[in-house]
This record gives sequence, C-alpha cells and structure tokens, in this order.
Amino acid sequence: MRTSSKKGKLALVAGEGDLPLVILKNLVASGETPVVYAIRPDWQDIEAYGVSVIPVKEINLVKIFGSLVFRRIKRLLLAGYVSKTVIYDDSADSEIKGIVAGLDDRNDHALLGAVIDRVEKLGISVLGYDSILPDMIAPEGRIAGPEPSSSDLVDVDYGRAVLGRLLPLSFGQSLVVCRRSVVAVEAMEGTDETVKRAGDISGAGVLVKGMRADQDRRYDIPVVGTKTLDSMSESGLSCLAVEAGNVLIMDREKLSEAASRLGISVIGVASCPSS
Amino acid sequence: MRTSSKKGKLALVAGEGDLPLVILKNLVASGETPVVYAIRPDWQDIEAYGVSVIPVKEINLVKIFGSLVFRRIKRLLLAGYVSKTVIYDDSADSEIKGIVAGLDDRNDHALLGAVIDRVEKLGISVLGYDSILPDMIAPEGRIAGPEPSSSDLVDVDYGRAVLGRLLPLSFGQSLVVCRRSVVAVEAMEGTDETVKRAGDISGAGVLVKGMRADQDRRYDIPVVGTKTLDSMSESGLSCLAVEAGNVLIMDREKLSEAASRLGISVIGVASCPSS
Repeated sequence: MRTSSKKGKLALVAGEGDLPLVILKNLVASGETPVVYAIRPDWQDIEAYGVSVIPVKEINLVKIFGSLVFRRIKRLLLAGYVSKTVIYDDSADSEIKGIVAGLDDRNDHALLGAVIDRVEKLGISVLGYDSILPDMIAPEGRIAGPEPSSSDLVDVDYGRAVLGRLLPLSFGQSLVVCRRSVVAVEAMEGTDETVKRAGDISGAGVLVKGMRADQDRRYDIPVVGTKTLDSMSESGLSCLAVEAGNVLIMDREKLSEAASRLGISVIGVASCPSS
Repeated sequence: MRTSSKKGKLALVAGEGDLPLVILKNLVASGETPVVYAIRPDWQDIEAYGVSVIPVKEINLVKIFGSLVFRRIKRLLLAGYVSKTVIYDDSADSEIKGIVAGLDDRNDHALLGAVIDRVEKLGISVLGYDSILPDMIAPEGRIAGPEPSSSDLVDVDYGRAVLGRLLPLSFGQSLVVCRRSVVAVEAMEGTDETVKRAGDISGAGVLVKGMRADQDRRYDIPVVGTKTLDSMSESGLSCLAVEAGNVLIMDREKLSEAASRLGISVIGVASCPSS
C-alpha cells in the first residue's frame, strides 16, 4: 500500500550502524519511499533500496532544515548512531548554536530533544517506530524460540519488578536474573558487556530489557537482535524478556532462526511496574 | 578498660579473610580478650594475639553450641567469610538439619539468620560492630584524604539519591557516578570489578557505597579499606562516599595514609534516602 502521498512526504535520517538499513528495508517493504539524509560514511549502501539519498558530511542544521522544507517533508524518522563530536563541533552553524545556548543542561539527550522540538515547529512530525513500523516493535507473548521454562518465568517476573524500579533512574536498560537473584545490572557498559559479566558469574539466567523513563520512543528505543542472542548463548542465558511496545526487534526473521537454533526463548512482557 | 567481666564473656567467630584479624586486633586494643572460634585454615595466626583459639574444621552446630554454653559465652561477634560448601555439607549435624528444614527459603542469607536466632535463644547476644567497635564504623563527615571537590560532592549527592532507590532491592551496594550520570552499578561482581569497569568507561568519578536493606549490621556489613582505594586510584576515581553508621573501615590508619598518598577523599554521608 502506498500511503506516502496521503500522509505527507517521509524523510529518514540515517545515522551509523545496521539499524537504519533494517528500518529502510522495512519501510520500502511497507510501500514507503523516504528521502534519506545519510549521516554515515557508507551512504552508497542506501542507494540499493531505490530511494533518494542526501549525504550529510557535516551537520549544518540551517542547511538541513532548509532542505526538509524545500522538499516539503512532513514526516521524519530517526535511526542509528550520530557521533557526539559531529554535533559539538566548533564549526556548528547558527541554528545549532542557538539551540545549544537555550539549553539548561548541555548533554546529548537535551540537545537532541531541542533539535526535535525545532523540527516539529517546521510542521514536520517526528515519528515513533510503533506508528510506522508496528511489526518491528516487540509484542506481548512468545516472540521467538522455545516456550520459556517455568523457572525462567519466575526469574523474568522477578527481573521485571526490579527493572521497574531502575528504569525511572536514568541509567541502563537491562539486567540479568538467576534464581531470583540479580546477577548483573547494566549502566554505561551496554547490554552485551552486562550479559558477558553474568556469564562469568552465574553462567545461567534470564535477560530482561526495557525502556528507561528518560528515553524517547521516537529516536532512542532499546534494540535487540541476533547479536543479543549470540551474547546470551555464550553466557548460558536461556530467556530474553523485552518490554512489549518499548523494544525494537532488529530483524524478526533472523531473530527467530537464531532463537530456535540457540534454544533461547524470546518473549514480550507487559511494561515493568514502576512501584 | 576491661569490660569483659561486666558485660559477659565474648566469643569471636572468625571466618576467612583479613577482617577477623583486624577485628581481633581492635578488640584486644579495647581491652577485650575473646575466645576465638576459627573457621579458617590459618588459625595459628590468631594465637599471636594472646587469646584462646578453638579451631573449627567442620561446622557441627551441636558441638559449637555446646562449647559456647560450656564456656559461659554471653556475647558473640561474627567476622569473615564462611564457605557455603561447609554449611550445606552432607555431613550436616542434627542442629543444622533442623534449622534448614524450618527455612522457607533455602539461601545462605536465610540460613545464617536462622542460626543467629538459635544462638540468641541460648541467651547469647550477637553483637553489631557499632556497639563493640564504634571506631571502626564510618562516621559522618571527612574520614581521610583531602576535602572533596564541589563537583565530586554534586556527584556524591546524585549517587546517594540513586543508591537510596537501589539498596532496598536486594542486590549490590555501590555505584560509580561521573558528572551526574551513573557509570556502573554493582550486583554480584563486587565493588572492585565495578570500579574497574568505571575506569574503562569514564576514568573519573566518585564511588558511593552503602548497606542493602536485607543486610544485617551484625554479620553482613559492607567493608572498605586500602584495597578499595587502590582500585579507585587505578580507575581514576577521586572520592569514596560511604553511608555513615553502615560501613566498616578495615584499618583507619592505613586508609588515612593511602587516601593522602593517592589524593582520594573519603567521606561519610548520611544514610541514602530510600524514596
């Protein structure tokens, strides 16, 4: 179905990593033909999808906003990693300098939020993945692999209760539970390091992952994929539980294959209770 | 001052590690001459302190309780690590089997709590370190090293607020904060590993350590010492903040020397607010 014309022209801002390519593949499959602003060195990869690509070598917001308006873009999707050095460059344009000057807190999170507010003032909606790619968002229930064991479900429930207390605290997104004890908690080291540590300590257990209260579903949603399952398998973990509606699955087909092959259950659970 | 006779005979149950030796040194210095039950291979070290030593090779509670009563012990202090394998041995005596049978939850924590309840039923008080060795417990205010910087104090306050939310959750005891962001959170890996990870990620920041809600000040109090400061120094951390009243300092004199030499501030802070 072609919905672009009805809903307004779509642009994808593609940072680094595989996520923008997977998003683009899914967008094209759903009938969307976005203009892609590529903030990544390998922008030629993107042309293979038959869409227009605008390589962005330095982030000049005056130019980018002008281009969005000129092309009558009405909807914007953000995906992938953008290096902080690019944003805090000394050669920042007047638009960025103005935004930075208006910030109370000079961190990446506040800056990106302010840039998005500015984009929306141009009459462009910044989309959540759930609104445009609902199939990529974790649903509730079994997602891939075997049914979880009853003892894994006990650990998942325990992990959900603990994670519900952590997610409002602005750090980390995941933890590993084994026999109703918290083995490892993620802060800045990332999920893979956390899983690896749990492998060294318990060599068994479940991984529970959710979205922090300070994350924005439109540009900062937690992601899981086959890499997550590979780490879990190396560490002896048997079940991945993700918050339904709040976690993006990189490539459902590959994830299903890996989950079955590795014998890891992947399930979506209701949002972690925060109290 | 000799207070033993007035307060009743004291026994020290000495597990493995340096802590029992430091405790014993402090006890002797304060005029106490405890009987030592040594659940550790190197019990000969203990005789150097001029106290009676009873080497315990297998934990037979019937025998130990009998000995405590026979010696008219009235006060008991527990220190050091006791291997779980010793306790859950198949050769457990009838007293242990009875205690284990009465447990709802068969974990080390519940077992030790039940053993202590049993000891107290014999008319023996299990002491907290604060009651018998108040000088070893972290006070509020500056403890060692230089005055903390104002930015470190901001990070300590932030860490206290986060730790106050974590300590009721039955995992970990410490976290590292750098520029009002949580860098690393301790679960089962222990404080040293957590500090090491923070070194790899931020290479700067403060360590905040407190006592979990499920810890018992009488036998499971958090400990800091020069080893903590050495890890912090290697990781570039500049301030150690411990919960006043809830953390034991291994050797105050050595800690002071190390803190000054390494330029690390050690401070005691009021209990972390739990909400």
